[in-house]
Amino acid sequence: MRATTIYGPQDVRLEEVPDPRLVRPTDAIVKVVAACVCGSDLWRYRGVVPVKPGSRIGHEFVGVVQEVGDEVRTLAPGDFVVAPFSYSCGVCVNCRNGIQTSCVRGGFWGGPDRDGDLVDGGQGEYVRAPLADGTLVKVPEAPAEDLLASVLTLTDVLGTGHHAAVRGGAGPGKVVAVVGDGAVGLCATLAAKRLGAERVITFSRHADRQAVARSFGADDIIAERGEEGAAALRDLTSGPGADVVIEAVGNQASMEQAIASARPGGNVGYVGVPNGVSQLPIKVLFGSNVNLLGGVAPVRAYIEELLPDVLARRIEPGRVFDRTVPLDDVAKAYAAMDRREAIKVMLRP
Amino acid sequence: MRATTIYGPQDVRLEEVPDPRLVRPTDAIVKVVAACVCGSDLWRYRGVVPVKPGSRIGHEFVGVVQEVGDEVRTLAPGDFVVAPFSYSCGVCVNCRNGIQTSCVRGGFWGGPDRDGDLVDGGQGEYVRAPLADGTLVKVPEAPAEDLLASVLTLTDVLGTGHHAAVRGGAGPGKVVAVVGDGAVGLCATLAAKRLGAERVITFSRHADRQAVARSFGADDIIAERGEEGAAALRDLTSGPGADVVIEAVGNQASMEQAIASARPGGNVGYVGVPNGVSQLPIKVLFGSNVNLLGGVAPVRAYIEELLPDVLARRIEPGRVFDRTVPLDDVAKAYAAMDRREAIKVMLRP
Repeated sequence: MRATTIYGPQDVRLEEVPDPRLVRPTDAIVKVVAACVCGSDLWRYRGVVPVKPGSRIGHEFVGVVQEVGDEVRTLAPGDFVVAPFSYSCGVCVNCRNGIQTSCVRGGFWGGPDRDGDLVDGGQGEYVRAPLADGTLVKVPEAPAEDLLASVLTLTDVLGTGHHAAVRGGAGPGKVVAVVGDGAVGLCATLAAKRLGAERVITFSRHADRQAVARSFGADDIIAERGEEGAAALRDLTSGPGADVVIEAVGNQASMEQAIASARPGGNVGYVGVPNGVSQLPIKVLFGSNVNLLGGVAPVRAYIEELLPDVLARRIEPGRVFDRTVPLDDVAKAYAAMDRREAIKVMLRP
Repeated sequence: MRATTIYGPQDVRLEEVPDPRLVRPTDAIVKVVAACVCGSDLWRYRGVVPVKPGSRIGHEFVGVVQEVGDEVRTLAPGDFVVAPFSYSCGVCVNCRNGIQTSCVRGGFWGGPDRDGDLVDGGQGEYVRAPLADGTLVKVPEAPAEDLLASVLTLTDVLGTGHHAAVRGGAGPGKVVAVVGDGAVGLCATLAAKRLGAERVITFSRHADRQAVARSFGADDIIAERGEEGAAALRDLTSGPGADVVIEAVGNQASMEQAIASARPGGNVGYVGVPNGVSQLPIKVLFGSNVNLLGGVAPVRAYIEELLPDVLARRIEPGRVFDRTVPLDDVAKAYAAMDRREAIKVMLRP
């Protein structure tokens, strides 16, 4: 089959690799129907996170089950499934606590599993999915073509934005600010409104992203950044800051902007992979009682809750996709996201 | 009058200073009945936080109102009052949000107020209390002598421990670990049990402090520290860590121990002044979804809630005091706490 590999900065390739096969009786083989490129893939694409040349990449995919191991109970060939961006057993204490990203048996797509066997990345034609009963969520029927983008967001960006909103405490009566206008930040805007936030203010300087944020329910947009952005937020709300701030970028400036935008006693829900955060300002957090909540989103915990709203088209998170390319053009997809020409690119094998 | 001043490391003195007088119509003058030395005073005593020579010091006191300004509505001479460790107006947005430590008009004892006028420290004979209606909490009647210690903890250590427990989410069904066996850590142990925590585990290596922790409801004591302590906690609880960890010290080792002791998705409620925390391990927090909540405790928010339990002797937080000395011996009180010969020392003017 063909799958995406990464060799180093700016060097992703589509290569011929071995077809996956069932390795353990809890595995399933999934034929990928749609995949995509994540902002977090860019950490490796840009060389911020080093890679082993030839590594598989991609952690967001939906598809159709081809084959299941003998111990798989809840899935059968032909099922359309959503794969969260990490695989997990569903029964260990961390999974039961809703933190499937800390599953004691789980891991991430594209690397070796705990026994050393390769787990395919999502940006390919087929994937061996370990712990299939715990990991994959069956969609009642294969989604219509025009729903595919929104269903695909359940693999990562919608659940990640939702996690930030949940951890931050977005809900009725709350003023929520969102730092980050990438796919996660936009989905966080949508999630905060979906949870009933009174007012959502999204920081963005890009007209196309502002338009998506508005369509997701943002009440206000602030173009300023940093301390100027936080000051604009205080002016706009005539108050000491937002009750909830969502940080969906993961660099030092965005984290500082998020903390500066929170009112005393407020919450920062952060889900941006903090590869760019060198120092948390502990004395600022302490002095203002701003809480820091979040982490790598256990999106598996949220798929069943969010899926009905997607299928019923009550929310349209798929709007974060502004480009679709064949899998053959995966290198172009990375380049477009790296140059911020596209918010998020869907790949079709 | 006589009041405590600090000149530099290991140099506190009791000196003759001007009697306080009403400066603004919202002031009250309080005659101090009891005060004490705080672990956070030791940051300055040890030279970690620099001081201006001759500064006033002390932020925990209870006493009797002597005189009130024309605009004071809720207090009268003769009232017995508890003073939280910061003064606050009670009506600004931050006070209404329960974050009185961020009051837009408030400040801390012993320094200048926002108009530049000196506010007395708590370790003296009299104090000018600004914003008296917002700051001081009247006790229905002067407490019996043997209740004084417990009432005095409402000024800081009980409310601070309670804040950590509240922010961390201590309550029914929760396993709570407490890092820190100083007065705040011990009060956090008490607060977590009072809030209904299923099991409270206190880290302590000192027999006297272990005994107080037990009397405050600690179910288990762990003597190990650091990663060994966290491992002992996981062994003891046969699980991935505590649901809630309270950090009541404020140095790098204690913060790392607290984070290591939390289960994935758990909460660290921190209230130790983080003067010793040089770096928060953001990638550890992110990867394990451990939330960091807390800050300088707005104890004013909690006094009315905690006072009835103290007056009815349902809780006895005053047990953290293991020494009482006359105000004349304030230098000895600091030395005893600095050498950890005493957990907490009460001062009687």
